[in-house]
Amino acid sequence: MGDIALVVDETIKRICSHKGVAGVMIVNGDGIPIKSNLDNALTVQYASLISLLVSKTRSVVKQLDKSKDDDELQSIRVQSKKHEIVVVPDFDKAHEYTLIIVQNHS
Amino acid sequence: MGDIALVVDETIKRICSHKGVAGVMIVNGDGIPIKSNLDNALTVQYASLISLLVSKTRSVVKQLDKSKDDDELQSIRVQSKKHEIVVVPDFDKAHEYTLIIVQNHS
Repeated sequence: MGDIALVVDETIKRICSHKGVAGVMIVNGDGIPIKSNLDNALTVQYASLISLLVSKTRSVVKQLDKSKDDDELQSIRVQSKKHEIVVVPDFDKAHEYTLIIVQNHS
Repeated sequence: MGDIALVVDETIKRICSHKGVAGVMIVNGDGIPIKSNLDNALTVQYASLISLLVSKTRSVVKQLDKSKDDDELQSIRVQSKKHEIVVVPDFDKAHEYTLIIVQNHS
């Protein structure tokens, strides 16, 4: 298995072992899911909606960067009544992969 | 001073006392800032950008709510290289006020 495939699998396995983790997805730079432990329909929905949210949030961070030099989005946490969605854009810099973790409130 | 003005002032004072807090703002349901300890230009910029981000994130939460019944956005945390922005929509339910806190990384 190629290096990156190994990284992807290891990452998902490690995260899934945490209590309360309902879903783990990895999305590429085009918003296409390349790995997920959720069903296909839900995965595609998360991938497209969260990719839009990442680009929106990235532009907010850039616009709010007074010195306009190098502030960079690192993560987004969305807390709702039912769960928490943690998004780590470019968690794998080389491949522009975004990690999405869905945690149910315990 | 009216009750809500007191709540607003107390909230800002309490949060500002925390180490690393660079900015605290309260924005009304129309995205208009009603209180801030940042300069006016930056406050207006935060208020408009973050209000857009809240409505975008709210719609993502609603669309991802499989049972379509009552999931609700509670908070957003945006982590960037320079700081963390914590957003609590409707922190004061009666007035639809959104709280925005900007923390520098210590």
